[in-house]
Amino acid sequence: MPLRLAANDAGFDTAFDALVNARRESDADVSADVTAIIQDVRDNGDEALARLTQKFDGHDPEFTGWQITPLECEAALENLDPNLRIALELAALRIRDYHEGQKPDNRDYRDDAGVRIGARWNAVERAGIYIPGGRAAYPSSVLMNAIPAKVAGVDRVIMVTPTPGGEVNPLVLAAAQIAGVDEIWRIGGAQAVAALAYGTDKIAPVDVVTGPGNAWVAEAKRQVYGVVGIDMVAGPSEIVVVADGQNNPEWIAADLLSQAEHDPTSQSILFTDDAAFADAVAEQIDTQLAALKTVETAKASWQDNGAIILVDRLEKAMPLVDRLAAEHLELAVDDPQRLFNKVRHAGSVFLGRHTPEAVGDYVAGPNHVLPTGRRARFSSGLSVTDFMKRTSFLECDENSLAKIGPAAVALAEAEGLPAHAASVQKRLDP
Amino acid sequence: MPLRLAANDAGFDTAFDALVNARRESDADVSADVTAIIQDVRDNGDEALARLTQKFDGHDPEFTGWQITPLECEAALENLDPNLRIALELAALRIRDYHEGQKPDNRDYRDDAGVRIGARWNAVERAGIYIPGGRAAYPSSVLMNAIPAKVAGVDRVIMVTPTPGGEVNPLVLAAAQIAGVDEIWRIGGAQAVAALAYGTDKIAPVDVVTGPGNAWVAEAKRQVYGVVGIDMVAGPSEIVVVADGQNNPEWIAADLLSQAEHDPTSQSILFTDDAAFADAVAEQIDTQLAALKTVETAKASWQDNGAIILVDRLEKAMPLVDRLAAEHLELAVDDPQRLFNKVRHAGSVFLGRHTPEAVGDYVAGPNHVLPTGRRARFSSGLSVTDFMKRTSFLECDENSLAKIGPAAVALAEAEGLPAHAASVQKRLDP
Repeated sequence: MPLRLAANDAGFDTAFDALVNARRESDADVSADVTAIIQDVRDNGDEALARLTQKFDGHDPEFTGWQITPLECEAALENLDPNLRIALELAALRIRDYHEGQKPDNRDYRDDAGVRIGARWNAVERAGIYIPGGRAAYPSSVLMNAIPAKVAGVDRVIMVTPTPGGEVNPLVLAAAQIAGVDEIWRIGGAQAVAALAYGTDKIAPVDVVTGPGNAWVAEAKRQVYGVVGIDMVAGPSEIVVVADGQNNPEWIAADLLSQAEHDPTSQSILFTDDAAFADAVAEQIDTQLAALKTVETAKASWQDNGAIILVDRLEKAMPLVDRLAAEHLELAVDDPQRLFNKVRHAGSVFLGRHTPEAVGDYVAGPNHVLPTGRRARFSSGLSVTDFMKRTSFLECDENSLAKIGPAAVALAEAEGLPAHAASVQKRLDP
Repeated sequence: MPLRLAANDAGFDTAFDALVNARRESDADVSADVTAIIQDVRDNGDEALARLTQKFDGHDPEFTGWQITPLECEAALENLDPNLRIALELAALRIRDYHEGQKPDNRDYRDDAGVRIGARWNAVERAGIYIPGGRAAYPSSVLMNAIPAKVAGVDRVIMVTPTPGGEVNPLVLAAAQIAGVDEIWRIGGAQAVAALAYGTDKIAPVDVVTGPGNAWVAEAKRQVYGVVGIDMVAGPSEIVVVADGQNNPEWIAADLLSQAEHDPTSQSILFTDDAAFADAVAEQIDTQLAALKTVETAKASWQDNGAIILVDRLEKAMPLVDRLAAEHLELAVDDPQRLFNKVRHAGSVFLGRHTPEAVGDYVAGPNHVLPTGRRARFSSGLSVTDFMKRTSFLECDENSLAKIGPAAVALAEAEGLPAHAASVQKRLDP
């Protein structure tokens, strides 16, 4: 049974604290394994990659081919079901449009002292995107990672994806073709992340690695952080739905299940001010579960991590919602803006009764790579700027240096850095 | 002797590759020590903090006081040399002005399909800033870390700083007072980072930890990354100067020494198209070193890591400069913009003959926390946005969902996620 709480109950605070602090992330310590794999790839390059791919994915890239060719991607797109192709292309178009708007402006101005100051953005040269193979092979992940990189202006987007037994997922290839991925390598796991970060004879090193993966991939990204940039390490998916009694319980039940079906460790939480509605949703969940192909996963998630929380008024839910800092937040009410104004911490918010979270997973435009596990308190969804970096710049002339230089000299001397002081003072002296 | 190369020499490419790939960062593996310290603080809280502070800093905060009081900070500011106070306040004002301009715009628009889409920025609630004690106790670091957090709108900025033997640095306190730091704790090392990330009975956990530190502090930040946000792990400082023969060799020598005096692992590199000028700079460096209080550090850095590289024309230096992706880059020529247009990778660029890098360390305005060790290829200086996060949002009505929903259903089904499809389809069905 999912957790059932009422904010008025004695002991609610303790129970809610436990919910907030529950760790759903794997505690499996794979760090030593991953360290060894990364070292192996650094030491032995492509030989290690081939050996580890044989071991973990059951094929030898020397025979199956290291790369998936552009021709294979074109063919995958040509052979795609026409409806799916239209859907993927609509998604790509909308994702591209939204991310175009994220491109940051350069700054370049002269201030009151006459100092020219500014900042200039450039794309990284090469980005690596990790796309899982097998069960969780999602074309939407290809679009959501590759398109922001392309919009940023990255020269080459290099995809790695494991092909267990040599099998590729044609949907993933079609998405790569639409997104404009430049290279695809048939490797996965920590060894693929190591190859992207450090390079091998075959694979040139990249500057940024993004994309979802299992515990090994996540740990490998963490270990190469600093050698390359990475997106935030992601944990299990989650949704919080704030809904009044005027919603269709069928719809809200489906929304809760849409997160639950991702993984047994996913979490779905409903806040409502209507006990009868809560019951109706719970009942609908059981009904829908019975007919769901992903019932095993969704049921485990809902029963182990799901929760229904009753509040007097939905406004009272909002501080609790903020503490959860959920990846996805639905506000299913007539005037969602009123509640949204009270939200500080959330990855992405879905406003009103006609905005199921799943529309954001695929076609709305904003990125579906979002902070999980309360990380929305301090981090953001994947963005074009994750594939760019900012160079600040300064230009003084004699006059402006005369205005601000003496303060720099005073501070440098106070910090015990005489060469710093001298480099300014020499230019101030007549 | 510093390295001396000419781009026309046979073997230049190999020598330059070696320079680019030289590792100046400490290889000391402190990760196991740091893991143990973090676990100790998580398990034993304030007792561990007191014990580790006694051990590493030689004082017991139960006696010396856990916090530095606002009164102590006020007194430090009141008692500050008036010239230094003016310098610090000018620096703070200019840093604040520049960072105000970094505050990102929210987005909120309705697209062609009628979908409302946007993104809203909020500050994190609590930021922790680490300020080293002892030798490298820099008030400028306080300003450069605390002011962006305050400009972002962070509720509480919590500073930690070790006070070896119980001694505090009054300049650091004065800077904290000017920057508006809300709390200061007399703790340091990996234990302070652990306390900020996980909290103790006395110290509430923060959302983001930034600030410079030694190998233990850097490793602790790396280990708590994901529990909190962190700024990029920093390595030794570096400067690349591109200068023609029209410069005063005294000035350029001082600029090169200003990085060299930070640490023996710092690096200063001069590119010039004038061999006589290169000789004059080298000679000036020796002359200035002899009179420098920081001679020991600066000499070691210059001799072990310094380099002078001769090119035919300065344009030819620019691809080499880009490969170094230096933290600081000076373009000491009459028309620096022409060279600057060829720069893709650099932390901060100093244009013209009258812009010594040190002016940027203190009073220019842009942040002096910058990517080192070639990380400017993929990362940026510290920014207001490092203390903020973005929440995307969506709002469909019946009509706009009817336009984009079917594509989401098709993709969800293709990905084998039927509850995702159902959550949209139920709203599309009449």
